[in-house]
Amino acid sequence: MPDDGFTLHGIALSGPTYKVALLLSLAGQRFQYRHVNLRAGAHKSPEHLRLNRFGQVPALEHKGLALCQSGAILEYLAETLGTYGGEDAAARQRIREWLFWDADRFAPGVYRSRAYRRGFAQAEAAVIESYRQVAEAGFAVLDENLAGRDWLVGKSPTIADIACYGVAFFIEEAGFNAVQWSNVDAWMKRIAALPGAKAPADLLPMQDATIG
Amino acid sequence: MPDDGFTLHGIALSGPTYKVALLLSLAGQRFQYRHVNLRAGAHKSPEHLRLNRFGQVPALEHKGLALCQSGAILEYLAETLGTYGGEDAAARQRIREWLFWDADRFAPGVYRSRAYRRGFAQAEAAVIESYRQVAEAGFAVLDENLAGRDWLVGKSPTIADIACYGVAFFIEEAGFNAVQWSNVDAWMKRIAALPGAKAPADLLPMQDATIG
Repeated sequence: MPDDGFTLHGIALSGPTYKVALLLSLAGQRFQYRHVNLRAGAHKSPEHLRLNRFGQVPALEHKGLALCQSGAILEYLAETLGTYGGEDAAARQRIREWLFWDADRFAPGVYRSRAYRRGFAQAEAAVIESYRQVAEAGFAVLDENLAGRDWLVGKSPTIADIACYGVAFFIEEAGFNAVQWSNVDAWMKRIAALPGAKAPADLLPMQDATIG
Repeated sequence: MPDDGFTLHGIALSGPTYKVALLLSLAGQRFQYRHVNLRAGAHKSPEHLRLNRFGQVPALEHKGLALCQSGAILEYLAETLGTYGGEDAAARQRIREWLFWDADRFAPGVYRSRAYRRGFAQAEAAVIESYRQVAEAGFAVLDENLAGRDWLVGKSPTIADIACYGVAFFIEEAGFNAVQWSNVDAWMKRIAALPGAKAPADLLPMQDATIG
């Protein structure tokens, strides 16, 4: 596979890191991977803050650029690689809408629910319940919008699907079951069957690696 | 002012609606305003769902398009009007990063804190406190990033500033005081001084109107 000089900084357990790795893999792009040791506070180090001023993962280096925020990185890659970016301007606008909806109303609910359930974070019961409700409402919106269609925007998979899949992937770890959202369930299977689709553990090892 | 056929659907109390109205005003664009009666459930009506499939405000109609998600609308307007969109491709990528950061880490904390404080929503104390912490962390990130600079991206105001200002504007209603974040305080004054900048009450009446 071509090596176009991508270096992804992140962690194996990070859903946003997975989104970026998944798109690179689906696009057939080899990338270097750098494990960021969050427990050791590496995401707040001066070196990492130069790559990601928000002190979060992931960060993607490409041709001298340092990119952050998974939604913004997906858009950059779709444009740069000319793939998964939608058929036309109207589709690109719909994709943006999904990316912002995901950041606002879907990812926080699922990722926080997962973090509480797996013990990565602690909170009082009322807080846990409030994020559970956000996640549940998010899955319901996704399910409604996937009724009668294969993909969120247009007739082929786009970064809107990849962004939301990088959240929905953790449905069981977050304490939900896809059975109640059958459109989501079928859509997840379609994405998992795409050439190049891999699980986080196969894309994001616990140590530095070259992947692809 | 030119009437380029914009119709904004929203409510006076909505921060995301304010973001869109503020950009239109800063850009010198006249727009029609349609009040969406949330208490009467108008945002879940078939008519509104045709404009915004997420059943939220705002929605913007323009030349036959129906646009939603305030961040996505700001990007559409910056491109369509050729203003507030950043100087070059690198600036546009930085702007996207801020828009996603806002959606994920800033707006939810401030808007929810405001809603609890003003009585638009109720929650248990632990939930209120968790959103207060999100808001406080968000203001701190904004303040750090505004140290030594007038605008979030480049040397002139962009939709990154407008998006974050449409949140920060409600700082006092959300229970915070800008005094502790002096860079945010100075930046808010710079935005308020831009030609065309207006407060929500001057842009978003409680009834339908033509504005501009």
